[in-house]
Amino acid sequence: MGISISDYLILRLQKLGVSEFFGLPGDYNFNIITSVENNPDTNWIGCTNELNAGYAADGYARIKGYGALITTYGVGELSAINAIAGSMSEFIPVMKITGVPSTKHIRQNTLIHHNLNTPDYHAFINAYSNVVEAAAFLTKENAKDEIDRLINIMIKEKKPVYLALPMDICNEIIDENYIECTQKSDESSLNSALEAALDLIKKAKSPAILADVMIKRFEAREEFYTLAKKSNYPASTLLMGKDILNCEFPNFSGTYVGKFDNPIAYKSINNSDCPIFIGTVISDINTQGFSLEVNPDDFINIQGNYTIVKNIMYKNVLMKDILEKLAQNIEKSESKTDFEYYYKDTQANKEKLSYDYFCEKLQDFLNEGDNLVCETGLINLALAKLKLKKNISVNNQVLWGSIGWATGATLGVSIADKSKRTILLTGEGSHQLSATEISTMIRNKLKPVIFVINNNGYTIERLLSDDLMDEFNNIAKWDYLKLPYVFGSNIYSASVKNDLELDNVLNKIQNEQKDKMCYIELCMDTFEMPELAKKAWGHIEIKK
Amino acid sequence: MGISISDYLILRLQKLGVSEFFGLPGDYNFNIITSVENNPDTNWIGCTNELNAGYAADGYARIKGYGALITTYGVGELSAINAIAGSMSEFIPVMKITGVPSTKHIRQNTLIHHNLNTPDYHAFINAYSNVVEAAAFLTKENAKDEIDRLINIMIKEKKPVYLALPMDICNEIIDENYIECTQKSDESSLNSALEAALDLIKKAKSPAILADVMIKRFEAREEFYTLAKKSNYPASTLLMGKDILNCEFPNFSGTYVGKFDNPIAYKSINNSDCPIFIGTVISDINTQGFSLEVNPDDFINIQGNYTIVKNIMYKNVLMKDILEKLAQNIEKSESKTDFEYYYKDTQANKEKLSYDYFCEKLQDFLNEGDNLVCETGLINLALAKLKLKKNISVNNQVLWGSIGWATGATLGVSIADKSKRTILLTGEGSHQLSATEISTMIRNKLKPVIFVINNNGYTIERLLSDDLMDEFNNIAKWDYLKLPYVFGSNIYSASVKNDLELDNVLNKIQNEQKDKMCYIELCMDTFEMPELAKKAWGHIEIKK
Repeated sequence: MGISISDYLILRLQKLGVSEFFGLPGDYNFNIITSVENNPDTNWIGCTNELNAGYAADGYARIKGYGALITTYGVGELSAINAIAGSMSEFIPVMKITGVPSTKHIRQNTLIHHNLNTPDYHAFINAYSNVVEAAAFLTKENAKDEIDRLINIMIKEKKPVYLALPMDICNEIIDENYIECTQKSDESSLNSALEAALDLIKKAKSPAILADVMIKRFEAREEFYTLAKKSNYPASTLLMGKDILNCEFPNFSGTYVGKFDNPIAYKSINNSDCPIFIGTVISDINTQGFSLEVNPDDFINIQGNYTIVKNIMYKNVLMKDILEKLAQNIEKSESKTDFEYYYKDTQANKEKLSYDYFCEKLQDFLNEGDNLVCETGLINLALAKLKLKKNISVNNQVLWGSIGWATGATLGVSIADKSKRTILLTGEGSHQLSATEISTMIRNKLKPVIFVINNNGYTIERLLSDDLMDEFNNIAKWDYLKLPYVFGSNIYSASVKNDLELDNVLNKIQNEQKDKMCYIELCMDTFEMPELAKKAWGHIEIKK
Repeated sequence: MGISISDYLILRLQKLGVSEFFGLPGDYNFNIITSVENNPDTNWIGCTNELNAGYAADGYARIKGYGALITTYGVGELSAINAIAGSMSEFIPVMKITGVPSTKHIRQNTLIHHNLNTPDYHAFINAYSNVVEAAAFLTKENAKDEIDRLINIMIKEKKPVYLALPMDICNEIIDENYIECTQKSDESSLNSALEAALDLIKKAKSPAILADVMIKRFEAREEFYTLAKKSNYPASTLLMGKDILNCEFPNFSGTYVGKFDNPIAYKSINNSDCPIFIGTVISDINTQGFSLEVNPDDFINIQGNYTIVKNIMYKNVLMKDILEKLAQNIEKSESKTDFEYYYKDTQANKEKLSYDYFCEKLQDFLNEGDNLVCETGLINLALAKLKLKKNISVNNQVLWGSIGWATGATLGVSIADKSKRTILLTGEGSHQLSATEISTMIRNKLKPVIFVINNNGYTIERLLSDDLMDEFNNIAKWDYLKLPYVFGSNIYSASVKNDLELDNVLNKIQNEQKDKMCYIELCMDTFEMPELAKKAWGHIEIKK
């Protein structure tokens, strides 16, 4: 028995849950796409360009755990490298598959299309090697081992990998058997970490949890909830891990936003004598300016594959395992938090649309189980105060921050789970970078609700610039309501200019969304912004 | 006296003729864009995404000699790497400028936005280094030397370079004086090459010239024309260098298309006892399948910086210099060519739009001095038979072949010389990848004539695939006529469904183009193709 190399590749990914493959065809990758089409459990999703396809694969992997992107050599793969680097930055395991020319051409260094003028058949894998966890250039001989190696790295490290597959070897037959990747902690390392952590916790008077996105990435949500409930420690989340906890949890202290707001979370973490960070990403925006002040001597830091206690790193400790063991060994705390950091009682403005009013209405609009995709920019800051119902998945790109990502990712998120609603929040500046991917959503009969905030340019960049009105932060004026009709006609679209119109439109969406994509333009003043942004940039004098 | 680093950078590029800088703003590149805005002779052209901006810079450099692209760190720069790799492949000197975080963050390896999770501030320059001729990461100390070095490489090698500029050093003052880059041949090498070449030519009975695109790239058109006229050797061009010669030249034998067509060119080159290749790119598509058969013992190959005669390479011989010297030293040949390889007498089809009819009408439509931009795909093959009037610039990407390039490049070409008409020919499959850049054309009041051939998918890929009707070569159906109106209203648009409608629309364009962008959809059958493609793929049975 045996299987062709490209069939095996697709099968291995399908077994990880990848049933949709994103990308564009090119004459060097036809064989690979044919393997996708021939596998009864996988589908090809042709996109409008490779970068968007990469964003879609990233969004898909955020929901389903893994994703895959197929492009052609040179031109196609390089167009997508930013998306894959974003997956690397944010721990999204996507396999980037490139169809490359035949072995004969590689060996002879032939100048065929999609090459540099002096061909270097390894130039592009070399470029990619800087932004993925591992890369492989397949040959007939190494194909089986290299595919297995890359798949195992995706599983263990939760990061993207790159694979170059020469078109002529796709149909070569290899062994179809493989050994399932298993992961376990190093027992001794795990026990030492546990002992050190428990020692700290037992001495502490005010342990507090800061939870973040790597809990999702390393599939440790269940173990985390068990620990959180069992301990009853005050727990807040960072922006990237917004959806890790919600107000169902009795001791939830909301999203941590540094000194700018939500003092309950700020104090519970920074005044704790035993802060427990779980899956945190300590970046500038995610921590609101590196505002966390912890003392290494009473600090527990639990990450995907390691734990740090009192400055000592315990390697090969899986997050799931130590969370489970911690939950088994700790006592319930008596602490109590009054969660109050969310949008409420915002007054409607008849004249204009206000950020906070929109956010408060969005709180109600979002249903249990919705998948939310949030673009980089002001909208991500607005997330902080959003009160979430159960099982809402919030997807953002706070660390990598590639504008345009969210529109592409919405394709991937909405196709990953068609049973759920997908809601996109984007500024129009970001939306312009990848707006054509709405076409692919319509082509695949997806029905996301898309909110495009039109505030006349890159507002967050205006705030970051010396001159608020630098011309370079203006963008082209589009007639956004016309855009989706280029791609299809089964659309509900509307433009919202004040808070009262918003109420009306949100009501209409409830019906329209059942069989239509909803595409809503939210017209706001240039410097209208969420409360958190006002606090962060309050010192800037806005010349309207 | 002195000048700031970013002002100096912009000044050096401006002195090369770069008056428009393409890109997108991001918080790490504000200082650089400010230098563009502060220089009275330079303008900032904000684009809808970085890949398109890169294509625009490439198109611009094809007309003006040099181009520049400014993006932010990580997210922005990686999105544009395919465009820059294309410039590398096709010898287009574009400077890729990246605004990077402050020196402080680089030194401390801080995890600020647009970084990989474990920051590596050299990851992206390392990625770029695989696809540019040279790269530099500026410091206050090396800035002056590195800017000068990169500029000189662009001038000498006609290839792209990459420059990373930390935001905090932009305003540091450096010396504003610089030494102009001068280029000259090595005299001894030049004389040896000339002697060897003349020796071959004098013995030969049928010297013939094959001219190609590197004549444009290395700015040797004038010297080439002088040689061509003085020698009167039969001369043909390759596809990439389509516009190097036209029928004004008495001994023009048309575009070389291998064995498929135009036997006059085929014979004149392959039967010559002294083929003289000037600036040729010997790639698969440019030679129609490596169809050139030359004997190294009687072969002269003149390239930008070197010449090969009888297998001996003479380095540091500038194309201009050896062409000039050759022209001074050769006798006029008596040979005579009857040029006849062009579209003529195509019958109009009342029912459908035919490729050849469109091409014949395009021949008439194109005026002296027009700038034509041609997308990869069937349309590029159609070029071969096009009879050109004087001074028409034909821009294509036959080697790199990145679909979507032409729409982005049209922005750059049309802004590079507003006094001329820019005409874009693209298939709709390619157009979808970068269609939003029409927005930037409209925003800048540019008035290109855009022809979008709508043939229901990637027809050239259908022809290259085992199965002509593979589903993956279908694309989303767009209502193309609605597209430009998303971006503006001062547009003449039309959809053409048969040859008679084409006549009508081409007539209308003559008036409309004066103050409007013209956006024309050309509806063709899926397998309608230019004559050359029919000959190349004639053996395939088209199941319509």
